Amino acid sequence: MSALNVVFRALFGPVDEVIVLTPCWQDYPLYLRNLGIPISFVPLGDDKHLDLEAIARAIGPATRGLVFSQPCCPTGVLYAEEEITGLSTILREAEARLGTQIYVVSDEVHRQMVWGTTAFHSPLFEYDRCLSIYSFGKALSLQGQRIGYVAVSPRMAENEEVRTNLERCTRFMGFGNPSSLMQYAICDLLEYEPPVKTLATRQASVRHALTDYGYEVCDGDATFYVYVKSPIADDFRFAECLASRGVLVVPSTLFHEPGYIRLSLTARFEAILAGLPTFARVLDDLRLVDCINRR
Amino acid sequence: MSALNVVFRALFGPVDEVIVLTPCWQDYPLYLRNLGIPISFVPLGDDKHLDLEAIARAIGPATRGLVFSQPCCPTGVLYAEEEITGLSTILREAEARLGTQIYVVSDEVHRQMVWGTTAFHSPLFEYDRCLSIYSFGKALSLQGQRIGYVAVSPRMAENEEVRTNLERCTRFMGFGNPSSLMQYAICDLLEYEPPVKTLATRQASVRHALTDYGYEVCDGDATFYVYVKSPIADDFRFAECLASRGVLVVPSTLFHEPGYIRLSLTARFEAILAGLPTFARVLDDLRLVDCINRR
Repeated sequence: MSALNVVFRALFGPVDEVIVLTPCWQDYPLYLRNLGIPISFVPLGDDKHLDLEAIARAIGPATRGLVFSQPCCPTGVLYAEEEITGLSTILREAEARLGTQIYVVSDEVHRQMVWGTTAFHSPLFEYDRCLSIYSFGKALSLQGQRIGYVAVSPRMAENEEVRTNLERCTRFMGFGNPSSLMQYAICDLLEYEPPVKTLATRQASVRHALTDYGYEVCDGDATFYVYVKSPIADDFRFAECLASRGVLVVPSTLFHEPGYIRLSLTARFEAILAGLPTFARVLDDLRLVDCINRR
Repeated sequence: MSALNVVFRALFGPVDEVIVLTPCWQDYPLYLRNLGIPISFVPLGDDKHLDLEAIARAIGPATRGLVFSQPCCPTGVLYAEEEITGLSTILREAEARLGTQIYVVSDEVHRQMVWGTTAFHSPLFEYDRCLSIYSFGKALSLQGQRIGYVAVSPRMAENEEVRTNLERCTRFMGFGNPSSLMQYAICDLLEYEPPVKTLATRQASVRHALTDYGYEVCDGDATFYVYVKSPIADDFRFAECLASRGVLVVPSTLFHEPGYIRLSLTARFEAILAGLPTFARVLDDLRLVDCINRR
């Protein structure tokens, strides 16, 4: 969170435009707006993979950045190497055509939480003007300990200038440093490997059950999340239906896309399994209401 | 540091003016400038106590805030109750005359480090439109653990509005929360009392020695700091003279006032005592150079 803010402050200003792919982690627009940086929202494709044509169309002379998470929060989609390569080609061509610099801010906080078949591929490997944001919170289950970093591509021509600028911003924004305790603690935790196999089992069970009930579940390969089409347009109302029966999910409008919900498989597995039939029940109830309304 | 930023962002904007008393903690102007908030620097008196007349003169229709530390970093001065009362009277009169609201941001991170005879008196007790900033870093020797808070006067008429605004800023600035670990840890440390008697002994020894050598030492009652007039106008050069002989001090220009140095008595006492004669030696050297230059 600090790293994102420092990067946004260091790279972008009120005359720049930053493309944010949606759905996105809920805080990108908050941070950008607080810093007075104009946003251009570009939706992902229907399959929640990169819509390269839409991105190409959105790039203009003011475009200075592109922010997205790889793998994606909230969808759980991990973008394939070909997608990242395609994106890089588009950005390089736009830079050459417009004579501008476009920075990719690649939020990679879930990069170790890959439970599917697609391998993690960072935009850092493809595109020189790239910064990678990382938090130890997910892989080490250390949420709330405020420890992470930003890495600037060593192949970025202006690497030193950007790093100096990040250091300056960290200083004068007055908060960017993690606590000294966590800086020590993290050194002893770097070998830890998150229980990805357990996550894969959970993901398979939940995705299988929801699909069986008749839900449209977004294909995924990574993260704790399951992104599911809401059976009614109002995702807040659907989330409330589930909540009233004891199942808590996040309506996708918070991720700047309406019509979906996000499940997070971080509770005890028994609790998750116990909650699944509620999805079938709520769907039945909604169908009944729909049926009555149509008469 | 986070609390200050959240308060500055919540209360002040680019059309407001904030009075900063100098010398001040080095970061206030950095944070205010980063947020685009205009600053009016008002020097403390020659004795480093509040210059109420200068403050009264500096208040105008755009004045929206006053920032200072009580006790003062870097001077170690603790403002007496009468001073705080006098300041409050001036601010209330200005508010009434100008029809404005003026917020006091009282940075009280050293309030437990009082080793002298003056008792700590918070502006909170005198002035309703006051916010107190606290960090556990000093009293608990927890520097770098990023744990503290901001308290809004319960007597402030718009208390609820301001608190809501602070919460919103903490959210959208994306960094204000302390780590969850420190939030737990701090609960078990609240009874701890800092070794103020030891600090008093150190302060007495250092102040006595420096005065004996011929230095002009600012009277103080609180903090780890000793604020000393530099024997030459260039405080950076004087700090370099000391540094070249193994004694590290901070030149006061960093605190937005030239001509002084700040000592911090946080090293081992033996190390501090061992460093003291260096001050005598450097003073002799400077006198010798001065003597040669005059010939």
